[in-house]
Amino acid sequence: MPQLKLIAMEKPLILVTNDDGITAPGIRALVEVARELGEVIVVAPDSPQSGMGHAITLKDPLRLRNTEIFEGIKAYECSGTPVDCVKLANNIVFKDRKPDLCVSGINHGSNASLNILYSGTMSAAMEASMEGINSIGFSLLDYSYDADFKPAQPFIRQIMEHVLKHGMQNTKLLNVNIPALPQTELKGIRVCRQAEARWKEDFVEAEDPRGQKYYWLTGVFVNEDHGEDTDIWALENGYLSVVPSGHDLTSYAAIPEFRRMEK
Amino acid sequence: MPQLKLIAMEKPLILVTNDDGITAPGIRALVEVARELGEVIVVAPDSPQSGMGHAITLKDPLRLRNTEIFEGIKAYECSGTPVDCVKLANNIVFKDRKPDLCVSGINHGSNASLNILYSGTMSAAMEASMEGINSIGFSLLDYSYDADFKPAQPFIRQIMEHVLKHGMQNTKLLNVNIPALPQTELKGIRVCRQAEARWKEDFVEAEDPRGQKYYWLTGVFVNEDHGEDTDIWALENGYLSVVPSGHDLTSYAAIPEFRRMEK
Repeated sequence: MPQLKLIAMEKPLILVTNDDGITAPGIRALVEVARELGEVIVVAPDSPQSGMGHAITLKDPLRLRNTEIFEGIKAYECSGTPVDCVKLANNIVFKDRKPDLCVSGINHGSNASLNILYSGTMSAAMEASMEGINSIGFSLLDYSYDADFKPAQPFIRQIMEHVLKHGMQNTKLLNVNIPALPQTELKGIRVCRQAEARWKEDFVEAEDPRGQKYYWLTGVFVNEDHGEDTDIWALENGYLSVVPSGHDLTSYAAIPEFRRMEK
Repeated sequence: MPQLKLIAMEKPLILVTNDDGITAPGIRALVEVARELGEVIVVAPDSPQSGMGHAITLKDPLRLRNTEIFEGIKAYECSGTPVDCVKLANNIVFKDRKPDLCVSGINHGSNASLNILYSGTMSAAMEASMEGINSIGFSLLDYSYDADFKPAQPFIRQIMEHVLKHGMQNTKLLNVNIPALPQTELKGIRVCRQAEARWKEDFVEAEDPRGQKYYWLTGVFVNEDHGEDTDIWALENGYLSVVPSGHDLTSYAAIPEFRRMEK
Protein backbone atom coordinates (compact mmCIF):
# COMPACT_ATOMS: atom_id res chain seq x y z
CA MET A 1 0.00 0.00 0.00
CA PRO A 2 2.33 2.76 -1.20
CA GLN A 3 -0.18 5.56 -0.53
CA LEU A 4 -0.42 4.79 3.17
CA LYS A 5 3.34 4.97 3.44
CA LEU A 6 3.33 8.33 1.68
CA ILE A 7 0.84 9.77 4.16
CA ALA A 8 2.84 8.49 7.10
CA MET A 9 5.94 10.24 5.83
CA GLU A 10 4.25 13.59 5.32
CA LYS A 11 5.61 16.21 7.67
CA PRO A 12 3.14 17.83 10.08
CA LEU A 13 1.91 21.23 8.98
CA ILE A 14 2.45 23.89 11.65
CA LEU A 15 0.86 27.35 11.71
CA VAL A 16 2.96 29.89 13.62
CA THR A 17 1.51 33.20 14.81
CA ASN A 18 1.92 35.72 17.63
CA ASP A 19 0.74 39.10 18.91
CA ASP A 20 4.01 41.04 19.16
CA GLY A 21 4.16 41.27 15.36
CA ILE A 22 5.98 39.30 12.68
CA THR A 23 9.31 41.06 13.29
CA ALA A 24 9.47 40.28 17.03
CA PRO A 25 12.40 38.11 18.19
CA GLY A 26 9.98 35.77 20.02
CA ILE A 27 8.30 34.49 16.86
CA ARG A 28 11.71 33.93 15.27
CA ALA A 29 12.70 31.72 18.23
CA LEU A 30 9.46 29.76 17.83
CA VAL A 31 9.94 29.31 14.08
CA GLU A 32 13.43 27.93 14.76
CA VAL A 33 11.91 25.12 16.85
CA ALA A 34 8.86 24.52 14.65
CA ARG A 35 10.85 24.14 11.41
CA GLU A 36 12.72 21.20 12.94
CA LEU A 37 9.44 19.40 13.57
CA GLY A 38 7.35 20.10 10.47
CA GLU A 39 6.44 22.25 7.52
CA VAL A 40 5.95 25.77 8.85
CA ILE A 41 3.70 28.54 7.60
CA VAL A 42 3.72 31.87 9.43
CA VAL A 43 0.71 34.21 9.46
CA ALA A 44 1.29 37.01 11.96
CA PRO A 45 0.32 40.65 12.54
CA ASP A 46 2.25 43.36 10.69
CA SER A 47 2.33 45.49 13.87
CA PRO A 48 2.34 44.85 17.64
CA GLN A 49 -1.06 43.65 18.90
CA SER A 50 -0.45 43.11 22.61
CA GLY A 51 -3.53 43.29 24.80
CA MET A 52 -5.90 42.80 21.87
CA GLY A 53 -7.58 39.81 23.54
CA HIS A 54 -10.07 38.06 21.29
CA ALA A 55 -10.74 41.17 19.18
CA ILE A 56 -11.70 40.75 15.52
CA THR A 57 -11.79 43.37 12.77
CA LEU A 58 -15.32 44.11 11.58
CA LYS A 59 -15.17 47.74 10.41
CA ASP A 60 -12.08 47.55 8.20
CA PRO A 61 -10.93 45.23 5.43
CA LEU A 62 -7.95 43.00 6.11
CA ARG A 63 -4.68 42.85 4.17
CA LEU A 64 -2.49 39.77 3.82
CA ARG A 65 0.98 40.17 2.29
CA ASN A 66 3.71 37.65 1.44
CA THR A 67 6.97 38.27 3.22
CA GLU A 68 10.37 36.60 3.00
CA ILE A 69 11.39 37.55 6.49
CA PHE A 70 12.04 33.91 7.45
CA GLU A 71 14.46 32.26 5.04
CA GLY A 72 12.94 29.24 3.29
CA ILE A 73 9.59 29.61 5.09
CA LYS A 74 6.25 30.68 3.64
CA ALA A 75 5.15 33.70 5.66
CA TYR A 76 2.37 36.28 5.53
CA GLU A 77 1.91 39.50 7.44
CA CYS A 78 -1.63 40.53 8.21
CA SER A 79 -3.06 43.97 8.98
CA GLY A 80 -5.50 42.66 11.61
CA THR A 81 -5.54 41.26 15.12
CA PRO A 82 -4.02 37.92 16.15
CA VAL A 83 -7.47 36.29 15.90
CA ASP A 84 -7.90 37.76 12.39
CA CYS A 85 -4.53 36.17 11.44
CA VAL A 86 -5.74 32.72 12.43
CA LYS A 87 -9.07 33.17 10.65
CA LEU A 88 -7.30 34.34 7.48
CA ALA A 89 -4.75 31.54 7.74
CA ASN A 90 -7.43 28.86 8.01
CA ASN A 91 -9.59 30.27 5.25
CA ILE A 92 -7.27 31.89 2.72
CA VAL A 93 -3.81 30.38 3.26
CA PHE A 94 -4.74 26.77 4.15
CA LYS A 95 -7.25 25.83 1.54
CA ASP A 96 -6.62 22.13 0.99
CA ARG A 97 -5.14 20.98 4.26
CA LYS A 98 -5.73 22.04 7.84
CA PRO A 99 -2.66 22.60 10.00
CA ASP A 100 -1.85 19.77 12.41
CA LEU A 101 -0.78 22.24 15.05
CA CYS A 102 -0.95 25.97 15.73
CA VAL A 103 1.71 27.57 17.92
CA SER A 104 1.56 31.18 19.04
CA GLY A 105 4.36 33.26 20.54
CA ILE A 106 6.89 33.21 21.97
CA ASN A 107 5.24 36.13 23.73
CA HIS A 108 7.44 38.78 25.30
CA GLY A 109 5.91 38.72 28.81
CA SER A 110 3.68 36.50 30.95
CA ASN A 111 0.27 35.22 29.90
CA ALA A 112 -0.25 33.21 33.06
CA SER A 113 -3.40 33.34 35.20
CA LEU A 114 -6.15 35.64 33.93
CA ASN A 115 -3.77 37.27 31.43
CA ILE A 116 -4.96 34.56 29.05
CA LEU A 117 -8.06 36.75 28.53
CA TYR A 118 -6.19 39.96 27.61
CA SER A 119 -3.52 38.24 25.54
CA GLY A 120 -3.52 38.37 21.76
CA THR A 121 -1.02 35.48 21.77
CA MET A 122 -3.39 33.23 23.68
CA SER A 123 -6.47 34.45 21.80
CA ALA A 124 -4.82 33.47 18.50
CA ALA A 125 -4.13 29.99 19.87
CA MET A 126 -7.64 29.82 21.31
CA GLU A 127 -9.18 30.79 17.98
CA ALA A 128 -7.32 27.94 16.28
CA SER A 129 -8.50 25.56 19.02
CA MET A 130 -12.09 26.74 18.50
CA GLU A 131 -11.65 25.77 14.86
CA GLY A 132 -10.60 22.26 15.93
CA ILE A 133 -6.81 22.63 15.65
CA ASN A 134 -4.53 21.54 18.49
CA SER A 135 -2.93 24.76 19.70
CA ILE A 136 -0.26 25.95 22.09
CA GLY A 137 0.57 29.48 23.23
CA PHE A 138 4.10 30.09 24.55
CA SER A 139 5.14 33.07 26.68
CA LEU A 140 8.45 33.99 28.31
CA LEU A 141 8.35 36.04 31.50
CA ASP A 142 10.57 38.77 30.05
CA TYR A 143 9.03 41.86 28.41
CA SER A 144 12.28 43.14 26.93
CA TYR A 145 12.97 43.13 23.21
CA ASP A 146 16.31 41.38 23.72
CA ALA A 147 14.92 38.63 25.97
CA ASP A 148 16.87 35.36 25.81
CA PHE A 149 14.62 32.68 24.31
CA LYS A 150 17.40 30.05 24.04
CA PRO A 151 16.84 28.33 27.44
CA ALA A 152 13.14 27.91 26.63
CA GLN A 153 13.61 26.29 23.22
CA PRO A 154 14.35 22.69 24.30
CA PHE A 155 11.23 22.68 26.49
CA ILE A 156 9.13 24.20 23.72
CA ARG A 157 10.37 21.46 21.43
CA GLN A 158 9.51 18.79 24.03
CA ILE A 159 5.94 20.13 24.44
CA MET A 160 5.36 20.43 20.68
CA GLU A 161 6.71 16.91 20.10
CA HIS A 162 4.44 15.56 22.82
CA VAL A 163 1.37 17.13 21.21
CA LEU A 164 2.34 16.10 17.66
CA LYS A 165 2.84 12.52 18.87
CA HIS A 166 -0.01 12.06 21.35
CA GLY A 167 -2.52 14.68 20.20
CA MET A 168 -4.92 16.23 22.71
CA GLN A 169 -7.92 14.31 24.04
CA ASN A 170 -9.79 16.48 26.54
CA THR A 171 -8.79 19.94 25.33
CA LYS A 172 -7.39 21.61 22.23
CA LEU A 173 -5.35 24.36 23.87
CA LEU A 174 -2.33 24.67 26.16
CA ASN A 175 -1.21 27.89 27.82
CA VAL A 176 2.55 27.54 28.39
CA ASN A 177 4.50 30.11 30.39
CA ILE A 178 8.24 29.99 30.94
CA PRO A 179 10.29 31.63 33.70
CA ALA A 180 13.07 33.92 32.47
CA LEU A 181 15.88 31.78 33.89
CA PRO A 182 19.13 30.26 32.60
CA GLN A 183 18.62 26.71 31.33
CA THR A 184 20.33 25.14 34.35
CA GLU A 185 17.79 26.77 36.67
CA LEU A 186 14.66 25.66 34.77
CA LYS A 187 13.36 22.78 36.89
CA GLY A 188 10.98 21.23 34.35
CA ILE A 189 7.29 21.27 33.46
CA ARG A 190 4.25 21.47 35.76
CA VAL A 191 0.69 20.92 34.53
CA CYS A 192 -1.43 23.46 36.41
CA ARG A 193 -4.69 25.28 36.80
CA GLN A 194 -5.04 29.02 36.11
CA ALA A 195 -4.36 31.01 39.32
CA GLU A 196 -7.23 33.22 40.50
CA ALA A 197 -5.37 36.54 40.41
CA ARG A 198 -6.30 40.04 39.26
CA TRP A 199 -4.90 43.35 38.05
CA LYS A 200 -4.96 46.39 40.27
CA GLU A 201 -5.05 49.30 37.86
CA ASP A 202 -3.18 52.48 38.44
CA PHE A 203 -4.02 55.05 35.77
CA VAL A 204 -1.40 57.70 35.15
CA GLU A 205 -3.11 61.05 34.63
CA ALA A 206 -1.66 63.74 32.37
CA GLU A 207 -2.75 66.92 30.61
CA ASP A 208 -2.38 67.67 26.91
CA PRO A 209 -1.20 71.08 25.59
CA ARG A 210 -4.87 72.19 25.36
CA GLY A 211 -5.45 71.50 29.06
CA GLN A 212 -7.45 68.31 28.51
CA LYS A 213 -6.86 65.36 30.82
CA TYR A 214 -5.88 61.94 29.54
CA TYR A 215 -4.99 58.63 31.16
CA TRP A 216 -2.42 55.89 30.61
CA LEU A 217 -3.46 52.40 31.68
CA THR A 218 -0.91 50.82 34.03
CA GLY A 219 -1.32 48.40 36.88
CA VAL A 220 0.14 45.78 39.15
CA PHE A 221 -0.61 42.06 39.08
CA VAL A 222 -2.02 40.87 42.41
CA ASN A 223 -2.10 37.18 43.24
CA GLU A 224 -3.60 35.91 46.47
CA ASP A 225 -4.11 32.36 45.16
CA HIS A 226 -1.08 30.50 46.49
CA GLY A 227 -2.18 26.96 45.55
CA GLU A 228 0.75 24.76 44.55
CA ASP A 229 -1.38 23.52 41.65
CA THR A 230 -1.46 27.00 40.04
CA ASP A 231 0.55 28.37 37.14
CA ILE A 232 1.80 31.29 39.23
CA TRP A 233 3.20 28.94 41.88
CA ALA A 234 4.98 26.89 39.21
CA LEU A 235 6.54 29.98 37.61
CA GLU A 236 7.66 31.42 40.94
CA ASN A 237 9.34 28.13 41.75
CA GLY A 238 11.34 27.73 38.55
CA TYR A 239 8.95 25.50 36.58
CA LEU A 240 7.35 26.00 33.17
CA SER A 241 3.56 26.08 33.64
CA VAL A 242 1.27 24.21 31.25
CA VAL A 243 -2.45 25.00 31.68
CA PRO A 244 -4.84 22.95 29.52
CA SER A 245 -7.45 25.56 28.60
CA GLY A 246 -10.86 25.81 26.93
CA HIS A 247 -13.43 28.29 25.75
CA ASP A 248 -16.50 27.18 27.69
CA LEU A 249 -16.99 29.98 30.21
CA THR A 250 -20.09 28.45 31.84
CA SER A 251 -19.91 28.47 35.65
CA TYR A 252 -21.61 25.10 36.08
CA ALA A 253 -21.52 25.36 39.89
CA ALA A 254 -23.61 28.52 39.69
CA ILE A 255 -26.45 27.16 37.54
CA PRO A 256 -28.65 25.88 40.43
CA GLU A 257 -28.69 29.19 42.32
CA PHE A 258 -30.36 31.03 39.43
CA ARG A 259 -33.01 28.38 38.73
CA ARG A 260 -35.55 30.31 40.81
CA MET A 261 -35.45 33.03 38.13
CA GLU A 262 -37.20 30.53 35.85
CA LYS A 263 -40.28 30.49 38.14
CA MET B 1 -29.64 52.63 65.34
CA PRO B 2 -30.17 55.46 62.88
CA GLN B 3 -26.99 54.79 60.91
CA LEU B 4 -27.98 51.25 60.02
CA LYS B 5 -31.28 52.54 58.73
CA LEU B 6 -29.47 55.11 56.60
CA ILE B 7 -27.31 52.47 54.94
CA ALA B 8 -30.29 50.25 54.28
CA MET B 9 -32.07 53.10 52.52
CA GLU B 10 -29.16 53.94 50.22
CA LYS B 11 -29.96 53.19 46.60
CA PRO B 12 -27.78 50.63 44.85
CA LEU B 13 -25.12 52.13 42.62
CA ILE B 14 -25.29 50.75 39.08
CA LEU B 15 -22.58 51.10 36.41
CA VAL B 16 -24.00 50.92 32.88
CA THR B 17 -21.77 50.28 29.87
CA ASN B 18 -21.90 48.67 26.41
CA ASP B 19 -19.90 48.07 23.24
CA ASP B 20 -22.15 49.64 20.59
CA GLY B 21 -21.23 53.11 21.85
CA ILE B 22 -22.89 55.59 24.18
CA THR B 23 -25.37 56.81 21.53
CA ALA B 24 -26.76 53.34 20.70
CA PRO B 25 -30.49 52.78 21.40
CA GLY B 26 -29.67 49.61 23.35
CA ILE B 27 -27.85 51.39 26.17
CA ARG B 28 -30.69 53.90 26.41
CA ALA B 29 -33.16 51.04 26.93
CA LEU B 30 -30.90 49.61 29.65
CA VAL B 31 -30.53 52.97 31.40
CA GLU B 32 -34.35 53.28 31.46
CA VAL B 33 -34.58 50.07 33.48
CA ALA B 34 -31.53 50.68 35.68
CA ARG B 35 -32.62 54.17 36.79
CA GLU B 36 -35.78 52.68 38.29
CA LEU B 37 -33.68 50.38 40.48
CA GLY B 38 -30.79 52.53 41.62
CA GLU B 39 -28.40 55.41 41.13
CA VAL B 40 -26.98 55.06 37.64
CA ILE B 41 -23.61 56.11 36.28
CA VAL B 42 -22.85 55.47 32.60
CA VAL B 43 -19.31 54.99 31.31
CA ALA B 44 -19.41 53.81 27.69
CA PRO B 45 -17.31 53.98 24.52
CA ASP B 46 -17.53 57.13 22.36
CA SER B 47 -17.62 54.95 19.21
CA PRO B 48 -18.84 51.45 18.28
CA GLN B 49 -16.59 48.72 19.70
CA SER B 50 -18.28 45.52 18.55
CA GLY B 51 -16.03 42.49 18.30
CA MET B 52 -13.36 44.05 20.52
CA GLY B 53 -13.41 41.10 22.91
CA HIS B 54 -11.27 41.63 25.98
CA ALA B 55 -8.97 44.14 24.26
CA ILE B 56 -7.33 46.87 26.33
CA THR B 57 -5.56 50.01 25.13
CA LEU B 58 -1.84 49.95 25.86
CA LYS B 59 -0.32 52.07 23.09
CA ASP B 60 -2.57 55.13 23.35
CA PRO B 61 -3.75 57.32 26.18
CA LEU B 62 -7.44 57.22 27.12
CA ARG B 63 -9.90 60.09 27.18
CA LEU B 64 -12.90 60.35 29.47
CA ARG B 65 -15.47 63.11 28.84
CA ASN B 66 -18.62 64.17 30.69
CA THR B 67 -21.74 64.00 28.60
CA GLU B 68 -25.33 65.01 29.26
CA ILE B 69 -26.78 62.57 26.78
CA PHE B 70 -28.97 60.91 29.46
CA GLU B 71 -31.12 63.46 31.22
CA GLY B 72 -30.46 63.56 34.96
CA ILE B 73 -27.82 60.85 34.81
CA LYS B 74 -24.07 61.17 35.30
CA ALA B 75 -22.47 59.87 32.12
CA TYR B 76 -18.99 59.67 30.61
CA GLU B 77 -17.86 58.73 27.14
CA CYS B 78 -14.51 57.03 26.83
CA SER B 79 -12.13 56.80 23.87
CA GLY B 80 -11.13 53.20 24.60
CA THR B 81 -12.53 49.69 24.45
CA PRO B 82 -15.41 48.39 26.61
CA VAL B 83 -12.88 46.85 29.03
CA ASP B 84 -11.04 50.20 29.23
CA CYS B 85 -14.39 51.83 30.13
CA VAL B 86 -14.87 49.52 33.10
CA LYS B 87 -11.29 49.96 34.28
CA LEU B 88 -11.60 53.76 34.04
CA ALA B 89 -14.99 53.67 35.75
CA ASN B 90 -13.68 51.68 38.69
CA ASN B 91 -10.52 53.70 39.10
CA ILE B 92 -11.34 57.26 38.09
CA VAL B 93 -15.12 57.65 38.31
CA PHE B 94 -15.89 55.49 41.36
CA LYS B 95 -13.33 56.57 43.88
CA ASP B 96 -15.15 56.24 47.19
CA ARG B 97 -17.74 53.58 46.54
CA LYS B 98 -17.73 50.51 44.32
CA PRO B 99 -20.80 49.91 42.17
CA ASP B 100 -23.21 47.29 43.52
CA LEU B 101 -23.90 46.06 40.01
CA CYS B 102 -22.53 46.47 36.50
CA VAL B 103 -24.85 45.99 33.54
CA SER B 104 -23.65 45.99 29.94
CA GLY B 105 -25.73 46.33 26.78
CA ILE B 106 -28.38 45.99 25.64
CA ASN B 107 -26.26 44.64 22.79
CA HIS B 108 -27.63 44.86 19.27
CA GLY B 109 -27.19 41.18 18.33
CA SER B 110 -26.57 37.82 19.99
CA ASN B 111 -23.76 37.11 22.42
CA ALA B 112 -24.84 33.54 23.07
CA SER B 113 -22.55 30.50 22.92
CA LEU B 114 -18.90 31.24 22.11
CA ASN B 115 -19.78 34.81 21.05
CA ILE B 116 -19.13 35.69 24.69
CA LEU B 117 -15.43 35.62 23.76
CA TYR B 118 -15.64 38.05 20.83
CA SER B 119 -18.13 40.37 22.46
CA GLY B 120 -17.13 43.75 23.85
CA THR B 121 -20.43 43.86 25.74
CA MET B 122 -19.66 40.64 27.58
CA SER B 123 -15.97 41.49 28.04
CA ALA B 124 -16.97 44.73 29.79
CA ALA B 125 -19.24 42.78 32.13
CA MET B 126 -16.55 40.15 32.62
CA GLU B 127 -13.95 42.79 33.48
CA ALA B 128 -16.25 44.17 36.19
CA SER B 129 -16.80 40.62 37.50
CA MET B 130 -13.02 40.07 37.59
CA GLU B 131 -12.84 43.17 39.78
CA GLY B 132 -15.37 41.60 42.18
CA ILE B 133 -18.53 43.38 40.99
CA ASN B 134 -21.72 41.42 40.23
CA SER B 135 -22.23 41.89 36.50
CA ILE B 136 -24.77 41.11 33.81
CA GLY B 137 -24.48 41.44 30.04
CA PHE B 138 -27.73 41.78 28.07
CA SER B 139 -28.09 41.14 24.33
CA LEU B 140 -31.10 41.21 22.02
CA LEU B 141 -31.06 38.96 18.97
CA ASP B 142 -31.62 41.85 16.57
CA TYR B 143 -28.69 43.60 14.90
CA SER B 144 -30.72 46.50 13.52
CA TYR B 145 -30.38 50.03 14.82
CA ASP B 146 -34.15 50.33 15.32
CA ALA B 147 -34.53 47.03 17.19
CA ASP B 148 -37.45 46.96 19.64
CA PHE B 149 -36.06 46.67 23.18
CA LYS B 150 -39.45 47.19 24.88
CA PRO B 151 -40.47 43.50 25.20
CA ALA B 152 -37.12 42.71 26.83
CA GLN B 153 -37.28 45.42 29.49
CA PRO B 154 -39.59 43.71 32.06
CA PHE B 155 -37.36 40.61 32.00
CA ILE B 156 -34.21 42.70 32.30
CA ARG B 157 -35.76 44.39 35.30
CA GLN B 158 -36.65 41.01 36.84
CA ILE B 159 -33.08 39.70 36.42
CA MET B 160 -31.50 42.88 37.79
CA GLU B 161 -33.87 42.89 40.78
CA HIS B 162 -33.04 39.25 41.47
CA VAL B 163 -29.31 39.96 41.52
CA LEU B 164 -29.65 43.16 43.57
CA LYS B 165 -31.75 41.25 46.12
CA HIS B 166 -30.03 37.85 46.28
CA GLY B 167 -26.50 38.69 45.06
CA MET B 168 -24.44 36.02 43.34
CA GLN B 169 -22.81 33.19 45.27
CA ASN B 170 -20.98 30.91 42.86
CA THR B 171 -20.27 33.34 40.04
CA LYS B 172 -20.08 37.09 39.43
CA LEU B 173 -21.29 37.19 35.84
CA LEU B 174 -24.45 36.39 33.87
CA ASN B 175 -24.65 36.28 30.08
CA VAL B 176 -28.29 37.07 29.20
CA ASN B 177 -29.57 36.78 25.63
CA ILE B 178 -33.09 37.67 24.55
CA PRO B 179 -35.00 36.47 21.49
CA ALA B 180 -36.31 39.26 19.23
CA LEU B 181 -39.98 38.45 19.85
CA PRO B 182 -43.11 40.36 20.86
CA GLN B 183 -43.67 40.27 24.61
CA THR B 184 -46.55 37.78 24.37
CA GLU B 185 -44.27 35.27 22.67
CA LEU B 186 -41.42 35.45 25.19
CA LYS B 187 -41.87 32.28 27.24
CA GLY B 188 -39.69 33.18 30.22
CA ILE B 189 -36.15 32.59 31.49
CA ARG B 190 -33.97 29.48 31.19
CA VAL B 191 -30.69 29.07 33.09
CA CYS B 192 -28.33 27.36 30.64
CA ARG B 193 -24.84 26.31 29.72
CA GLN B 194 -22.95 27.86 26.78
CA ALA B 195 -23.63 25.85 23.59
CA GLU B 196 -20.54 24.36 21.91
CA ALA B 197 -20.94 26.11 18.54
CA ARG B 198 -18.50 27.77 16.15
CA TRP B 199 -18.19 30.32 13.36
CA LYS B 200 -17.54 29.21 9.81
CA GLU B 201 -15.76 32.14 8.22
CA ASP B 202 -16.41 33.25 4.71
CA PHE B 203 -14.01 36.01 3.71
CA VAL B 204 -15.18 38.31 0.96
CA GLU B 205 -12.27 39.09 -1.35
CA ALA B 206 -11.98 42.39 -3.20
CA GLU B 207 -9.36 44.45 -5.02
CA ASP B 208 -8.44 48.05 -4.31
CA PRO B 209 -7.87 50.64 -7.11
CA ARG B 210 -4.14 49.77 -7.04
CA GLY B 211 -4.83 46.10 -7.75
CA GLN B 212 -4.10 44.91 -4.21
CA LYS B 213 -6.35 42.27 -2.68
CA TYR B 214 -8.17 42.79 0.58
CA TYR B 215 -10.61 40.75 2.65
CA TRP B 216 -13.79 41.41 4.61
CA LEU B 217 -14.46 39.08 7.53
CA THR B 218 -17.91 37.50 7.34
CA GLY B 219 -19.20 34.14 8.44
CA VAL B 220 -22.04 31.92 9.50
CA PHE B 221 -22.76 30.64 12.98
CA VAL B 222 -22.80 26.85 13.07
CA ASN B 223 -24.33 25.00 16.03
CA GLU B 224 -24.28 21.25 16.23
CA ASP B 225 -24.84 21.18 20.01
CA HIS B 226 -28.58 20.61 20.34
CA GLY B 227 -28.69 20.00 24.11
CA GLU B 228 -31.87 21.36 25.70
CA ASP B 229 -29.69 22.76 28.49
CA THR B 230 -27.90 25.14 26.08
CA ASP B 231 -28.42 28.85 25.51
CA ILE B 232 -28.98 28.32 21.78
CA TRP B 233 -31.79 25.83 22.44
CA ALA B 234 -33.47 28.27 24.85
CA LEU B 235 -33.28 31.14 22.36
CA GLU B 236 -34.58 29.05 19.47
CA ASN B 237 -37.53 28.01 21.64
CA GLY B 238 -38.64 31.47 22.73
CA TYR B 239 -36.85 31.67 26.10
CA LEU B 240 -34.37 34.21 27.42
CA SER B 241 -31.08 32.42 28.13
CA VAL B 242 -29.13 33.12 31.32
CA VAL B 243 -25.64 31.58 31.41
CA PRO B 244 -23.72 32.00 34.70
CA SER B 245 -20.18 32.57 33.43
CA GLY B 246 -16.63 32.86 34.74
CA HIS B 247 -13.09 33.64 33.69
CA ASP B 248 -11.27 30.46 34.70
CA LEU B 249 -10.43 28.85 31.35
CA THR B 250 -8.67 25.82 32.85
CA SER B 251 -9.79 22.53 31.28
CA TYR B 252 -9.67 20.54 34.51
CA ALA B 253 -10.61 17.30 32.75
CA ALA B 254 -7.52 17.60 30.57
CA ILE B 255 -4.94 18.04 33.35
CA PRO B 256 -4.22 14.29 33.90
CA GLU B 257 -3.42 13.56 30.24
CA PHE B 258 -0.50 16.02 30.19
CA ARG B 259 1.04 14.88 33.49
CA ARG B 260 3.49 12.65 31.61
CA MET B 261 5.12 15.82 30.26
CA GLU B 262 6.31 16.46 33.82
CA LYS B 263 8.45 13.26 33.73
